[in-house]
Amino acid sequence: MLSRSEERLLRALQRRKARESQGFFLAEGVRVAEALVRTGIALELAIVSTTLEDTPRGRQLQDALAARVSLRIVPERVVRASAATENPQGVLVVARAPVALLADVRVNTHSRLLVCDAVQDPGNLGTLIRVADAFAAAAVILLPGTVDAWNPKVVRSAAGSSFHLPLVSASVADLSAWLRQHRFLTLGAAPGGAALEPESLPARAALIVGNEGAGLSEETQALVDRMVRIDMPGHAESLNVAVAAGILLYLLARGET
Amino acid sequence: MLSRSEERLLRALQRRKARESQGFFLAEGVRVAEALVRTGIALELAIVSTTLEDTPRGRQLQDALAARVSLRIVPERVVRASAATENPQGVLVVARAPVALLADVRVNTHSRLLVCDAVQDPGNLGTLIRVADAFAAAAVILLPGTVDAWNPKVVRSAAGSSFHLPLVSASVADLSAWLRQHRFLTLGAAPGGAALEPESLPARAALIVGNEGAGLSEETQALVDRMVRIDMPGHAESLNVAVAAGILLYLLARGET
Repeated sequence: MLSRSEERLLRALQRRKARESQGFFLAEGVRVAEALVRTGIALELAIVSTTLEDTPRGRQLQDALAARVSLRIVPERVVRASAATENPQGVLVVARAPVALLADVRVNTHSRLLVCDAVQDPGNLGTLIRVADAFAAAAVILLPGTVDAWNPKVVRSAAGSSFHLPLVSASVADLSAWLRQHRFLTLGAAPGGAALEPESLPARAALIVGNEGAGLSEETQALVDRMVRIDMPGHAESLNVAVAAGILLYLLARGET
Repeated sequence: MLSRSEERLLRALQRRKARESQGFFLAEGVRVAEALVRTGIALELAIVSTTLEDTPRGRQLQDALAARVSLRIVPERVVRASAATENPQGVLVVARAPVALLADVRVNTHSRLLVCDAVQDPGNLGTLIRVADAFAAAAVILLPGTVDAWNPKVVRSAAGSSFHLPLVSASVADLSAWLRQHRFLTLGAAPGGAALEPESLPARAALIVGNEGAGLSEETQALVDRMVRIDMPGHAESLNVAVAAGILLYLLARGET
């Protein structure tokens, strides 16, 4: 069973304020826990169900966790009751949330950035982080109004990518100065934009995506050097934000090679 | 207030069995309701919050609904309590679920299909339907094990696209015969596949995407003529299924023009 203080900690970490004051986050699900245990991120506590070791993959994960952190083995229902996501697959890990600043972002000759402006759905932000990781973005920048990157549902949707690249919270003003200093061209997705021609882009490009309903805020639109569109021959008026970012980051990555 | 039988109907429609036996589905949220009211789909009942008409957009939607269906105006909390999605934005509509068969799919010189094999997350299926609509697929085919296309969360994520193209449930055997009869080339997404070269594809192509964890089933793999890959220069091992389908359907649509 879990102690009272462990129960309290798990409940608290479902709230952004508690995550920020305590510096921890919750990683749920087999795939996310596997990705986490391969990193150097400090682990605080792992809770696994008694049935996790029933599969070879689960046993391997349990062994890897046991080698690094204090492990509580509890009934499956306790794991579920303590989890923030619907199906935690028998594993929750409490770990120290990495903190990254703009100064930590490594800029190379060819750098791509993904900037999220008031993205509100945790599943969308997690999928955006996964897409940024897949197409080798140097970082994901989170502007004010965006859901917390260490929300357990975001971490779950990111499928391990949260641990692969810096997730940086920044103000529009700070980001603007930093992008100028490092000579990034900023792209915004908009139906009225130009077709994206990766060949004509500079080596450093930042793609800005906006809120699911409202799109880019006025303040953020002022950052955009070039609006780009995705040609859609069908009926849908728009794409899901993570799908749109996926297509554009794919095209940007392909343009480099 | 709602009558007992209306309350019962709304609760029942959160379950697949009741949807199938009654032939209705629940559309929730402003955008979905707006798309629905523009179609010829038969509406059964609309429930809107007393605050919907506080905005011009809400008032317009309420008027459009009132012109077509019996309207209940209730407190916001009643709308929330009756909804299957987290934030129904003050509007729920009960409507007749369209039924489509393989024979209803219109096949042209250039046709693209999206086939979903045991896709389980409602948000993913809805986003897949939206992507298929955006890139002008002729239909979305749902193989056994896939979440119900008329699940309220699927309808919500599809953002109105559910009403724009046929959503067809079919067995692998029936689909296989139909694809052969209509000379479709079938593509499956897999890391070991070939690069997609839209120029070299026949006019008719069906993209098959699989379960979020397990990928394509063995039975479905046997349908695939060509495995295609998406080059990912970064760290993520895979993409979200809807993002992957978005990139491939974008490339397929662009190859046509």
